[in-house]
This record gives sequence, structure tokens and C-alpha cells, in this order.
Amino acid sequence: MNQDRMEKLLDLLELHGLTGFALNPGPSLTYLTGLHFHLMERPTVLLVSQDGSSGMILPELEKGKLEKETPLFHAFTYSDDPATWPAAFNQAGEWLNLGRGQVGVAPNRMRFLELQYLEKALPNIEFVDGSHALEALRIKKDQDEIAKMREAARIAQDAMRETLKLVQEGMTEKDIANQLIINLLKAGSDPEMPFNPIVAMGENSANPHAAPSDRALRKGDLFLIDWGAGFEGYFSDITRTFTFGEVDPELIKVGEIVLEANRAGRQAGRPGVDAGAVDRAARSVITGAGYGDAFIHRTGHGLGMEAHEPPYIFADNPFILAEGMTFTVEPGIYLADKGGVRIEDDVVVSGEGLESLTDFPREVRPLEDYWG
Amino acid sequence: MNQDRMEKLLDLLELHGLTGFALNPGPSLTYLTGLHFHLMERPTVLLVSQDGSSGMILPELEKGKLEKETPLFHAFTYSDDPATWPAAFNQAGEWLNLGRGQVGVAPNRMRFLELQYLEKALPNIEFVDGSHALEALRIKKDQDEIAKMREAARIAQDAMRETLKLVQEGMTEKDIANQLIINLLKAGSDPEMPFNPIVAMGENSANPHAAPSDRALRKGDLFLIDWGAGFEGYFSDITRTFTFGEVDPELIKVGEIVLEANRAGRQAGRPGVDAGAVDRAARSVITGAGYGDAFIHRTGHGLGMEAHEPPYIFADNPFILAEGMTFTVEPGIYLADKGGVRIEDDVVVSGEGLESLTDFPREVRPLEDYWG
Repeated sequence: MNQDRMEKLLDLLELHGLTGFALNPGPSLTYLTGLHFHLMERPTVLLVSQDGSSGMILPELEKGKLEKETPLFHAFTYSDDPATWPAAFNQAGEWLNLGRGQVGVAPNRMRFLELQYLEKALPNIEFVDGSHALEALRIKKDQDEIAKMREAARIAQDAMRETLKLVQEGMTEKDIANQLIINLLKAGSDPEMPFNPIVAMGENSANPHAAPSDRALRKGDLFLIDWGAGFEGYFSDITRTFTFGEVDPELIKVGEIVLEANRAGRQAGRPGVDAGAVDRAARSVITGAGYGDAFIHRTGHGLGMEAHEPPYIFADNPFILAEGMTFTVEPGIYLADKGGVRIEDDVVVSGEGLESLTDFPREVRPLEDYWG
Repeated sequence: MNQDRMEKLLDLLELHGLTGFALNPGPSLTYLTGLHFHLMERPTVLLVSQDGSSGMILPELEKGKLEKETPLFHAFTYSDDPATWPAAFNQAGEWLNLGRGQVGVAPNRMRFLELQYLEKALPNIEFVDGSHALEALRIKKDQDEIAKMREAARIAQDAMRETLKLVQEGMTEKDIANQLIINLLKAGSDPEMPFNPIVAMGENSANPHAAPSDRALRKGDLFLIDWGAGFEGYFSDITRTFTFGEVDPELIKVGEIVLEANRAGRQAGRPGVDAGAVDRAARSVITGAGYGDAFIHRTGHGLGMEAHEPPYIFADNPFILAEGMTFTVEPGIYLADKGGVRIEDDVVVSGEGLESLTDFPREVRPLEDYWG
């Protein structure tokens, strides 16, 4: 258990008027405890009370994981028979003595499964969206966390250099994506990556969330790769766009506009500025060039132990940036049936402004430049 | 959209007295629609009404995915600003006219995030555990699904053969796990695998849920590998145990007992028998040999589009097996500080009994046998 982080959570419970917090497997549980659990068919929950006591409901099979931790959580275990599950929740509820009040949960993790048992075991408790407390807990990364994100960026970039050397005419999107995963592992990525790489060629690149298909690379294609690595539980997330042969001149022009928008976004952020400012700076470049309607998503999202986490970088977000926050800057222009360009970097808010953790060449360049 | 499966869901809604179903991204949504969505910070929900109408709440950015489908779902979209999300839920709720009653959800998928919006948009609806309906929808696999699981098994086995050729003294658990992932991709696995491989050497193999560490292989080790592949969204899940050099004779004896328990479990299942019978048959072999306390988990779990799904194979499960159900048979014996043996196969219930989809040699054999 990380005592400092647990103390901070207790302070946040007080600030937000919460009598406790309920966490199931996911990044916040790992952040607080160092423990990893699968999010599967069995309910695993850490209950933390405002008085500092904590108990964990988990399968008997997993109890060994707690014994490596100091101090131990009080464990409430159950067997493989779901008939034994309610008793474990009831015992934890009685032991923790949470009384009446509100208990926070992570809305994008806590499931109906765990809530069913929690609500029955704690009938006087209202379970509420605790994302503000978790955001305050995790949104500013410390030096150790930033070092891990830097390493995740290095691994991703090294893997891309190795992959591009192998890309040839006729390779499919799936071929390249698989080769990239292999090179990510070889370069030192955790097996847990932020997402599976997106490789989108030609017209497919006009869809920002394309899944790799059997489309093969041919002369005249522009292609986009969106990928990332994991390092000790922290992620990178990068997008670069390449050309192969002679590409439609409009796409080359679009590539220059997106590059300028990326630069404008990275220059707009600093401590004290709202997250929306980064989006507006990038967007105004694209709108000014006449492609406003073709930039169909926000400029970025927070990045860390989750592939998408706060702060979210959209025009109307008044959230104020501060040192240690980490997010992506990823403007794009998407032209239906033609193709799209996105250029995505990972940045950290430092004293002066935004420092980029990623430095792979940003401009849209011919694939052949990387065959070297 | 798969019309037959949607019809079946509508029949199940009627049977279970549900006025509708709410599905967020996951295997049931994919099973019904063929669509893939990420389970991320944005709420994506398919609402199905008992009258057959259906609407999907999703980010504007993802709307293109629906347009490739026939027939279209009615789409209710929102932008990157969370302030626009409630309106999309409200519009979907009004359009569907679900009235009063109960709407089912998948308890291991539906999150507090989506529930928050659903409960506000549909104040007269009670959201309830719909797992019985989903179980009835998906638990019996058709020939096409079984063919995909067979292919996922073939890929996993081929990847293991290639990996074992490379395993040498001094390689760490992480080294072997990474090499296995690489070989799974090369053998044709989807990037979405059921889980990351477990490689556990020596004393680490006594923990059934060990994560790969920097422990290196040395003479005298027994080691266990639990791995699987994905093929077109269907999974395999296999465990085999190997020796390297001269291993503690008790572990060799334990290996023979587990092999016999695996065989007994695979022989006990057939249509009309309870799932518990498979567990009891495997367990009685291990208990009879004096190791009952060292078999610390259920004998298996259902397998398909999820790594763990119904039916669960534990002694007290009265659930009746029927043709087309697929699950694992994976007895194990775990001796603290010494090591553990588990032997896991994937089986399908056929007319005569259980057919194994996996045929990699089951007995605990020396690594050198695979160096060929």
C-alpha cells in the first residue's frame, strides 16, 4: 500500500463529504495499493472508510496477493460458489462501520455487478460519482510517473522506427499492426498496451477510429498509424502520418495545416491556462485554413495509467492546467473517401509550458525516408 | 445486425418479463450487432425495446460505424463536451417509449457511468441483472462459433510449439511470455487475446494467478504456462506444465494425479448432466490421492467471446449441460514453496460427451522433448 496516496485520498474524502470510497480493479486501485487484479466475473472491491480503515472483498484464491503487502488490508474472502459472495460483502460492511452517507466510486470502472452486492450490504449508503476525488488524486503526475511515461514514449518510438524499415507495398493494415505489436514487445513494452495499434491506409485514414483491415499498401497512399506502449503501468499514445508514392496534393497541404495546428496546441498550454485554450489554439489554425468541419474530434485527452483520462482537451473545458498534468495534443483533418491526417504528441505541463514527451518526426514524410 | 439473434433476445425479454435491454460495449453487443466499440470514458449504449425498436447512444465521432450496418439503428449522438451527453440519453429514452418496467443489463459490463445517464433519462425504469437472458442467448455455441474456437485453439497450440523450441535455461518468465505473445500473433491470433500468458516457474507455479516475473529458468524447475489466442472474437485458454532437468519426485507424482483428474473431468460431462458433476469427478481423483486441500479453485469456466463466462464448473453448480456449451477443464494441485501443476483443456458438449478442442500433449513432459 502507498501510505502517502492513501492519506491524500482520505483528505479528499473529507473535502468531498464522502464517508468512504469503493474501488474495483483498475488504475486507481493499483495507484493506491500496487496490487493488480483482473476485472472479471468475480467482484473484487477495496472499501476505504474516512476513518482510515480499509477492507478488501476478494476471491479466496487471490488472498495471497494481499499477504505480500504491508500493512495488510483486512480481507473478506469468498469461494467459487456465487452463493458465498453476499456474506463477504456483508462482513466487510459490518466491519468497516461506514454508517450513513455517501461512498464514492469510479464511474468508468464500477459495475452493476459490484454495486448489486454493495447496495445490499450497505443499505444506508448512497453510492455516488467519485470522479472529482479520483481526478484530484491522480491528475498531477510525480517525477517517477513522468519518467515511466517518458520510457513508454521511447519504447513506442523505437518500435515504430523498427517497424517502418519493414513496411513494403502490399503489406496490409493488419500485417503492419501485428508487426508493430511485436516490435513494441521487443522494445520493452508491457504486454498491457493502451490499445491495439490503428493502421489506416488511403480512404480508411478518413475514419479516426478505424480498425486495421486487409487493405494493402499501394503507391499513392497516405497512411496513418496511432499506437502506444505501456511501461510499468503507464502509457504513451502517438499518431504519425506517412506517404507512399505520389499522394493527392490536397492531402499534402492538409498535412502541413495539421502540423501547424499541433504546434499551436503545444504552444498554448501552460500552468494557469484552461484546457480549452489548447483545443482552441489548434482548432483555429484548422478553421482558419478552411477545414474546420473536417476536424471532427477534441484536440486531446489526459494520459497516464489510462489511455483516456482527465483532463479532456475540448474547446469549452474551463478546467485549469497545472504542472505535472499529462495529455495528448492530436489535431486531425479527415476528408471522406480521400484520407485523413492526425499528428499526436504526449505532453506534460511544466513551469514554462508544455514539454513534449514524444519527438518522433512530426511532419508527413515519405515512408522511404525511414528505410535507411 | 444479426436479425436471428435479435429475435431471440426479444423472446428472452418476454420470457423474463423485461421491457427492454441496455447493452454497453462488450461481447453481447458485438454478438447482436457485429459492432465493436471501446469501453472508455464516453458512454455508448444500445437500448432494445421489447417491441423490437432499438436505438444507440454514442459519440458523433462513432456514428459512421452504424452506417455500415443494415438495418440502421436509430442513432442518438453527442459531442466531446460531457454537457451534451444527457440530452442524447433523454432523446433515446423518449423515442423508445419503454414505459414502466424492468430493463436488463449485463452486470459484469454495465458501469456506474452509463447507469447514471440511463436512470436520469428513464426515471420509471428499474435496471436489473439481465444475466439469465444473456446466458440463454449466448451459452450454446453454433457450428460457426465452435469452428472459431477450434481455430483459436489451433493457433494457441502452434504458437506454443514454436515458443518451446526457443526456451532455454536463463530465460525469464517475462521473456517466455513475450515470445509467446509474438508467436501467437505470428500464428494468426487476433491482437485481442483472452489474457496475457501466465508463465510461472518453480515455487511461483504454486500461485494459480501468478504474473510473469524476472525469475529465470534453471535446472530442477517445473514450469507452468497458461495461455490462449483470439480468433474472430473467440478465445482459447490452455494450461500445460513442463519440467527442466531433474524435478522433485513429488511434483512428478502430482503431475500424474492432475492428468488423471483432467481425464476424469472430461469424461464426466455430457448433455443432461449438471456442471457440478465435472468438478466432482476431477476433484474426487485429487481428493482420493490425498491432495484435496491443494486443489484450491473450481475445475473450470465457460469460454467463448469472454475468457470467463457461464457455465462455471464448481461442485455445487446444478446448471444442466447441453450440446454446444463450451468450457475449460483445468484441475490443479498447488504445493506452497514447491510448485504447482495445472492441466487445462477447452471442451464442447457434443451428443456423446465432451469433445476436447485442444490436444497438445497433456502429460507433464521435459522441455527437451519439444526442442525437436
